[in-house]
Amino acid sequence: MSDYLPSYVQGEWWTPASPASVTEVRDASTGEVITRVSTEGLDLAGALEYARTTGQSSLAALTFHQRAVLLKQFALALTERKDELYVLSARTGATKTDSWVDIDGGIGVLFSYSGKGRRELPNSTVLVDGAVEPLSKDGSFLGRHIYTTLPGVAVQINAFNFPVWGSLEKLAPAFLAGMPTVVKPATPTGYLTEAMVRILVESGLLPAGSLQLISGSVPDLFDDLRLGDVVGFTGSASTAESLKAHPAVQTGGVRFTSETDSINASVLGTDALEGTPEFDAYVRQLVTEMTTKAGQKCTAIRRAIVPATSADAVIAAVQARVAEKTVLGDPRAEGVTMGPLASTAQRDEVLRRVRELQDAGGEIVVGSTDAPEVRLADGSTGPAAEGAFVAPLLLRFDEPQTDAVHTVEAFGPVSSLLTYGSIAEAAALVARGGGSLVTSIATHDPAQAVELATRIAPFNGRMLLLDRDDARSSTGHGSPLPNLVHGGPGRAGGGEELGGIRAVHHHMQRTAVQGSPEMLTALTGVWHSGAAAHSGGRHPFRKSLAELRIGDQIASASREVTLDDIETFANFTGDTFYAHMDEEAAAANPFFPGRVAHGYLLVSWAAGLFVDPEPGPVLANYGLENLRFLTPVSPGDEIRVELTAKQITPRETDDYGEVRWDAVIRNQKGETVATYDVLTLVSKS
Amino acid sequence: MSDYLPSYVQGEWWTPASPASVTEVRDASTGEVITRVSTEGLDLAGALEYARTTGQSSLAALTFHQRAVLLKQFALALTERKDELYVLSARTGATKTDSWVDIDGGIGVLFSYSGKGRRELPNSTVLVDGAVEPLSKDGSFLGRHIYTTLPGVAVQINAFNFPVWGSLEKLAPAFLAGMPTVVKPATPTGYLTEAMVRILVESGLLPAGSLQLISGSVPDLFDDLRLGDVVGFTGSASTAESLKAHPAVQTGGVRFTSETDSINASVLGTDALEGTPEFDAYVRQLVTEMTTKAGQKCTAIRRAIVPATSADAVIAAVQARVAEKTVLGDPRAEGVTMGPLASTAQRDEVLRRVRELQDAGGEIVVGSTDAPEVRLADGSTGPAAEGAFVAPLLLRFDEPQTDAVHTVEAFGPVSSLLTYGSIAEAAALVARGGGSLVTSIATHDPAQAVELATRIAPFNGRMLLLDRDDARSSTGHGSPLPNLVHGGPGRAGGGEELGGIRAVHHHMQRTAVQGSPEMLTALTGVWHSGAAAHSGGRHPFRKSLAELRIGDQIASASREVTLDDIETFANFTGDTFYAHMDEEAAAANPFFPGRVAHGYLLVSWAAGLFVDPEPGPVLANYGLENLRFLTPVSPGDEIRVELTAKQITPRETDDYGEVRWDAVIRNQKGETVATYDVLTLVSKS
Repeated sequence: MSDYLPSYVQGEWWTPASPASVTEVRDASTGEVITRVSTEGLDLAGALEYARTTGQSSLAALTFHQRAVLLKQFALALTERKDELYVLSARTGATKTDSWVDIDGGIGVLFSYSGKGRRELPNSTVLVDGAVEPLSKDGSFLGRHIYTTLPGVAVQINAFNFPVWGSLEKLAPAFLAGMPTVVKPATPTGYLTEAMVRILVESGLLPAGSLQLISGSVPDLFDDLRLGDVVGFTGSASTAESLKAHPAVQTGGVRFTSETDSINASVLGTDALEGTPEFDAYVRQLVTEMTTKAGQKCTAIRRAIVPATSADAVIAAVQARVAEKTVLGDPRAEGVTMGPLASTAQRDEVLRRVRELQDAGGEIVVGSTDAPEVRLADGSTGPAAEGAFVAPLLLRFDEPQTDAVHTVEAFGPVSSLLTYGSIAEAAALVARGGGSLVTSIATHDPAQAVELATRIAPFNGRMLLLDRDDARSSTGHGSPLPNLVHGGPGRAGGGEELGGIRAVHHHMQRTAVQGSPEMLTALTGVWHSGAAAHSGGRHPFRKSLAELRIGDQIASASREVTLDDIETFANFTGDTFYAHMDEEAAAANPFFPGRVAHGYLLVSWAAGLFVDPEPGPVLANYGLENLRFLTPVSPGDEIRVELTAKQITPRETDDYGEVRWDAVIRNQKGETVATYDVLTLVSKS
Repeated sequence: MSDYLPSYVQGEWWTPASPASVTEVRDASTGEVITRVSTEGLDLAGALEYARTTGQSSLAALTFHQRAVLLKQFALALTERKDELYVLSARTGATKTDSWVDIDGGIGVLFSYSGKGRRELPNSTVLVDGAVEPLSKDGSFLGRHIYTTLPGVAVQINAFNFPVWGSLEKLAPAFLAGMPTVVKPATPTGYLTEAMVRILVESGLLPAGSLQLISGSVPDLFDDLRLGDVVGFTGSASTAESLKAHPAVQTGGVRFTSETDSINASVLGTDALEGTPEFDAYVRQLVTEMTTKAGQKCTAIRRAIVPATSADAVIAAVQARVAEKTVLGDPRAEGVTMGPLASTAQRDEVLRRVRELQDAGGEIVVGSTDAPEVRLADGSTGPAAEGAFVAPLLLRFDEPQTDAVHTVEAFGPVSSLLTYGSIAEAAALVARGGGSLVTSIATHDPAQAVELATRIAPFNGRMLLLDRDDARSSTGHGSPLPNLVHGGPGRAGGGEELGGIRAVHHHMQRTAVQGSPEMLTALTGVWHSGAAAHSGGRHPFRKSLAELRIGDQIASASREVTLDDIETFANFTGDTFYAHMDEEAAAANPFFPGRVAHGYLLVSWAAGLFVDPEPGPVLANYGLENLRFLTPVSPGDEIRVELTAKQITPRETDDYGEVRWDAVIRNQKGETVATYDVLTLVSKS
């Protein structure tokens, strides 16, 4: 590794020349200096502007699907070289399991967003939100909401604990949205982020300006931000507070999303007595959350809230499990299950906080703050002079209302145990955290789960309901997932990250658009009823994806529905519902004038009316959406159908794509009988 | 009207005893004192706590639909007594048309949210967001997002210009979400809000604590706010800035939504030459926006951005239209089309801003800042000594890059004209506003509309595309609508109001929930695949809405599909698509093993398999959603269907409700052939 940790800005690797002030970064277990960090002389404003110009335009040239395909390629490139990352990760104090969460977890986010981007977004650059809003009686004036890419740069300010995952979980949705990213990792573990970015740069896959890296601190960053930029911050609540106060955020329109460590809770239900699977799952999860990443997780359990009658049993079980499962030491040593904290500064900070908790009445009931014996890299055991080791600690508070336990965070392997009487009390204790990233509840009683969850939901970004049914398959209290919102109200930062496409939205502007069907069609790439349709000429089923145009239409001939047809259909399908079979009973139904045709008959016939049967580009009808039967069809009525190409979604990696057709069945009076969307797969050629 | 304007707090009307300092409120046209305002001695903290306790619990006892029904009843109660409001509204300077926007517009928001609440929300108290996220391969661990009501109070801080609409547009989504509201109107027109609240109070319809009114200023408001509360602010950007800086918002987790007046733009397309319908529509709209509410609208057009070659024509047309259409005067006088500003203070402020614009290079090309001759209440014409009158003013800037025209707002009947060369230039000028509530574009050229709209969308909360097709049906540049987002990025405040159910979400917390299908079913009231299902016993179609339970299921017998069936169906429906008819061609299709059954055959047969045909509680199948065909069915395959009650939505005002059924068709190997939701109407008894 070079003397100075490089940044990657404006398409080039950059290191400071001979900076006046540098920060040394050390191995968490041995204290050995790994690298030196400084941004002296770095052209920050230039990097941001490069993102806003080159980055924006190279991403704007790609559709959502093309960006999604790239995310998968990034994931594959990282997977291929992930061993390099694991080696560096051990130096941060991470065990193999910890590194897996960070490295494979981060890669997993890329895969997940790649899949979601292709399944849930159109293959274009503008996203439609919600349904058409009719704004005039004659249909000439409609409303629709769209999302467009924010025109600025997405700046990540990351925490030290997940140098890979933390960067990738913010990159994926921003990239998919079309926003270029500037990553600013935390200095203590930034060398791992640098290695990850280096792999991506060397893969040659990155669109120009789409990803830049700033290794080191940038105190004046916000002076260079402006409307259209987004900051995604992960770290302490106090840092978030000071950043957010900058005029760029307060009045300049810069979006600021923060995810701050919070005083998360885990509640043991009153039914989850010792000996139940829920009790065991609760204790297992609690110890896991204390020891994974040595407890350096924003989502770790800080408050174990248990029935007063179960407190002693929980403490004993935690004690036993820690003793049985935890081997503290250098992650490079065989058998170590828990590593050091990221730095000795971090260790000292954690011990200070533990003392604060003790001073407020917390009694240490598992572990000790004495310097622990640890397993060293050579396999020997002893005290580690330079290593940032802290043993897992559980404190007990006799007074659950004590302020400190709800406000003081020891960002390490530290949890506090509180007791409750009623469910309402437990809920109130959870809420005392002032807003959390996650609370888990261990109970097998649905009524208890619902009561507790409903009360605490508004104070949490995520809730995990743990019981015998999901204990084995649960992904765990502390694991944010790409398809679930990560973030929380109040103290947790008030932001939302991840959550699938929800996080893509956070990088786009939602705008209401009003206009004629024609204009909305042009703007969204989705056909709006009332816009021009092209019928006559070649049947649209004879057109390949390349030839088909939005608005291409087949308007069918009419076909009369007879009583005989209805009976034939009833007998063939077995659907002899009285509304089709019994005139008197049907007429007594509030919605039918008498016997009516089956809805399924109508859509089946519609398919017969609009189909072009010979082999051609249309490969299959794979589904149907939003079907509504609006006017009943009586014997003697005639139906016809209009089928109009509504949305065309070529697949990037297949030789076909999806076509969504707008289908409207009308009767001989022109009344709308049914509306729906037909989903087909159509060949590209 | 009483000496002091009352507040309505903690279920009682309240007036100050003998306050040391009061604000006098005057008639906008005559200067006559209408009322006096003071909050001295008002128990603000008590009012907020009353909302959080009594208000929260009385709303929590109601479902979304029950709240929606109440909104309609509020609307009807206000409609019945709206004449009282019109009389007071005239005193604010509003013409009949202006009052219609405020009063009937506000009532319209209630109607709209009442309808949307019942159509688009479940009849329960927890809202599900997005699809199920599978989190384990065996289906035992799922993710889902829910919205729950924020546990605090929704405080409105309103602007003076729409005393009725401004209160109701914030009340409707908060009420629907289950949040109690405290309205704090602007003092100059708060007497009209008071009259509106009084009608609601006297209607007896308000759930206890759901609506309180504070007449007068509450400078220490934010000291009493906390996590779970929401502030909806409308007003100036500078006030928003100072409020937002309060620790309650910065670190306390209080949500702050602001909608601030912005420097909105209206762009005339290069194709919209004099003589085109777009040119005429553009000028008509511009003059309307200058004169409605005397231009005192956050959404009014402040910048008319026109092709350089059209500038003179636009000015002449505006001149002519103002002369022809505008009669300035006391709104109570016959024929008056434009009233005074809300107060003489407001008038002086506007004239100051106009001078600022003039100093920056703006030349007045329509109107004059001299005190205008106006029509008085008695029908005579003359200068109005005490009235807050300003004539419509159009300024022209030769230098479109001038800062002032993009930053200085004269909140009255004032617009500035700027010229552009290229579309890119026009877009850049729009963006110079730093974020706007709305921009309109007059063009009949879809390519131009798309280019401009795509560039400016991220800088706007709303865009209106105006052309000959929608000019007559357009609701206008300046009109926020309940079903479209109102708000905008940057200078416009960065918030979102309205937008249908989107604004309900803003009063709720989104939380990711992980758990077993059983637990998610219990929490959401929506059946999740994998949760217990109850089959056997009475057919679920024989159960009334009152008897039916989530999870009630019919698991059908199997039925073999033969080649003969496929041919029969093809011939009956006319759907002779080759995949059903031609073995060789079907086998050549990438998705089919050979000839396969029609998808429509499968769902039709499924209906035959699950139906219980005799008259009973199930009244109709009104639709179907999310149908996907997953495994093709070949001749000789057998299908069966499971139909499970997934969601039950009783209607409040009908004797039936909706039942959504989960339908799964499987083949003889247990493979999933198709999944969909069947939508039915079921009788309550």
